Amino acid sequence: MDVFDIASIKFKEGKLFLLDQTLLPREERYIEIQTKEDMWEAIYKLKVRGAPAIGVAAAYGIYVAVKDIEAKDFQFFREKFIKVKEYLNSARPTAVNLSWALSRMEDVLSQNKEKGIDEIKAALFNEAEKIRLEDEAACFAMGEYGLSLLKPNMGILTHCNAGTIATAKYGTCLSPIYLGHERGYNFKVFADETRPLLQGARLTAWELSKAGVDVSLICDNMASIVMKNGWIDAVVVGCDRMAANGDGANKIGTSGVAILAKEYGIPFYMYVPTSTIDIETRTGEDIPIELRAGEEIYKMWYEKEMAPAGIKTYNPSFDVTEAKYITAVITEKGIVYPPYEAGLKAILGK
Amino acid sequence: MDVFDIASIKFKEGKLFLLDQTLLPREERYIEIQTKEDMWEAIYKLKVRGAPAIGVAAAYGIYVAVKDIEAKDFQFFREKFIKVKEYLNSARPTAVNLSWALSRMEDVLSQNKEKGIDEIKAALFNEAEKIRLEDEAACFAMGEYGLSLLKPNMGILTHCNAGTIATAKYGTCLSPIYLGHERGYNFKVFADETRPLLQGARLTAWELSKAGVDVSLICDNMASIVMKNGWIDAVVVGCDRMAANGDGANKIGTSGVAILAKEYGIPFYMYVPTSTIDIETRTGEDIPIELRAGEEIYKMWYEKEMAPAGIKTYNPSFDVTEAKYITAVITEKGIVYPPYEAGLKAILGK
Repeated sequence: MDVFDIASIKFKEGKLFLLDQTLLPREERYIEIQTKEDMWEAIYKLKVRGAPAIGVAAAYGIYVAVKDIEAKDFQFFREKFIKVKEYLNSARPTAVNLSWALSRMEDVLSQNKEKGIDEIKAALFNEAEKIRLEDEAACFAMGEYGLSLLKPNMGILTHCNAGTIATAKYGTCLSPIYLGHERGYNFKVFADETRPLLQGARLTAWELSKAGVDVSLICDNMASIVMKNGWIDAVVVGCDRMAANGDGANKIGTSGVAILAKEYGIPFYMYVPTSTIDIETRTGEDIPIELRAGEEIYKMWYEKEMAPAGIKTYNPSFDVTEAKYITAVITEKGIVYPPYEAGLKAILGK
Repeated sequence: MDVFDIASIKFKEGKLFLLDQTLLPREERYIEIQTKEDMWEAIYKLKVRGAPAIGVAAAYGIYVAVKDIEAKDFQFFREKFIKVKEYLNSARPTAVNLSWALSRMEDVLSQNKEKGIDEIKAALFNEAEKIRLEDEAACFAMGEYGLSLLKPNMGILTHCNAGTIATAKYGTCLSPIYLGHERGYNFKVFADETRPLLQGARLTAWELSKAGVDVSLICDNMASIVMKNGWIDAVVVGCDRMAANGDGANKIGTSGVAILAKEYGIPFYMYVPTSTIDIETRTGEDIPIELRAGEEIYKMWYEKEMAPAGIKTYNPSFDVTEAKYITAVITEKGIVYPPYEAGLKAILGK
C-alpha cells in the first residue's frame, strides 16, 4: 500500500516537515516548520489536521521552537517553553490531543529539571518520537479491533478524514479499512465530501483510492439515500474529543450521520484513541466548538461567487454526537460499549 | 418586496424569456427560448428549475416550438406537437409537473381539434398563460395556509430552493416566509446550501436577502447542529413529485433533513401544489430518481481540483422523504395531515 509512503509529519536530519494538506489532492508538498509561528499557522490553517496528527505535530513543533533557545538555567528555559506551549495551544480549541501532547512535553520538561538544558532538549525530542510511535501503534490496534466488527464485502460510510494523514500512520477509523483491504475484505467505501473544507473529497477519497480501496465520493446530503438504498452496513468516523459520558465531538455533520444511521438501523462506530478521551469534560455540552470564518462556506475553493455578497453564515467546525447514537467506541486498548461512563473510565484505568 | 420584480419566466411581445438560474447570484440574465432544443437544454441544464416553474416554462415552451409550424390539417399539426411534447418530456424524469403541463397542453389541442390551426395556437397560448396564473394563485394560497402553521420570530430551516424563481411567483415553501415577512413576522431563516449545485446558497439566500428576510447560509451537514442549538422551530421544503401514499421526492438531502427534524421533534412541512401529486404513483419507490454526472460533485463551481482525478461518484438529484417523516402537506387547496392516502385523494376530489 503505497499510501503509507505518505506521512503527515516527517522529521529528517533535525528538520520538521509537514505535508500541506490544504494543497491535496492536486499537490503533495511538504513544508518546513522552523518557528512556533510556522507551527501555529500550520495547525490553524489546517495544513496539518486530524486530532492525532495535530498532537504529534505539536510535540515535534514545540521541540523545534525551543531547541535553539540558549538558556543556562532551567527556570529561564521553562518560562520560554511555557510561553510557546500556551501559544501553540491556542491554535485550535476543540481537539484535546493538542493540549494533551503539549502537556506530555511539559511533563518531560519537569521530570528532567535536574538535568542540563541539552539533555532536556534531547528528552523532549525523544518524547515527540515516542508520541508518534505510540500513535502509530494505537492506530494499528484500533484497526484490528475495528476490523473484528466488520465483515467482507460490507459497504462502509465515512465522514471527513480520520485516515493515515490524520494520524502518524494508518488512521483511526480508516485503519480497519486498510487492514481489511490487505486481507481481501473487498469493502465498498462511501466518502462524504465533508463541506465546507472537503476533507472527504480531497483527503479520504485521495488516500483510499491511492491504496486501491473501492471508494465512491458523495455529497454530505446523500448519506440518507445511500443508507436507504441498503448500501451501507456500518458507519465509521473519528473523534476530536470524547467527554466522560461518551458524547463525541467530531467534524461538523457527524451528528447528523449518526442520527441517520440510527434511523436506518446501521451501526455507528466512533474511533477514539484514549488520548482523545477527556474524562475531565463531563458531557458534550462542555466541549468548546470552534467557529470559523463564513468565507469557508461561500468563497473558499470557488472561482465564481456562489452566494450573495455579504450573506450571513454560521460555520461551526465540529458538532457533538450524543452517546446514545454511538454503537461502540473503538480505542487502541479495546472496544467500549454503552454505558460509556463506566466503560471509558475502565479502559483508561481510572 | 422587489424580489417579485424577478420572474423566472417572462413572455413579452411574442417572445419567451427565462431567467438563467445557473448564472445566479452573480448575474441576472434572461435568455430567449426560440426552439424546442433551447427549451430542452434550459430544463436539462437547470437554467429553469423548480417543479412548478418547469411546468410553466414547458407550457410556454411547447407553444413557442409549435407556433410557427405551417400546417393545413389537424393531424399533421398534432403529429408535430406530439413529437415536441415527447422530446421536452425527456429533459428531466423526476418532476411530475413537466409531463403534467405538457399533457394539459395536449388536452387543449384535442379539445380544439375542430378549429383552425391559428385558433388552436391561440388556445395553446391561452393555456400557458392560464397555467402561469394558476401557479401564482396556488403559491399565494399555499403561503396563506402555510403561514397558519407558523408563529412570529420562529426559526425556519429550508433546503434547496422552492422560492419565487422556482414557481411563477412567491414560491411554494418560501411563500409563507414572504407573506409573514410582509406582516412583520420576523422569521430567522436558515438556508442549506444544497450541494452539489448550491441552489440554497445561490438562489434561496439570494432571493430571501433581496427581499430583506433575515437569512443565514449553512452547509447541508450543519442542519443537525442548528436544530440541536434550538434555533429551528419548523422545516419547510418543496416537492417534485408526491406519491399517493404521501412519500415525496424532493432535492437530494431532503430525506435526511426530515429524519433529523423528527429526531429533534421539529415539524417538517412539505409544500406540494396539487399538480405535483401523482396519484398514479403508488409509493416513493415507484418514483424514478434522476442520476446526474459526477462532475457536478467534483468539478463544477470549482477553480481547483477538489477530488482525485477519475474518482467514482454517486450523484442522485433527488431523494424520497417517506410519508412518516412529513408532519403536514401544504397544498393550494388546504393542509393535508396523515394518513395521506385518504387525505391526498380527498384534496384532489378523487
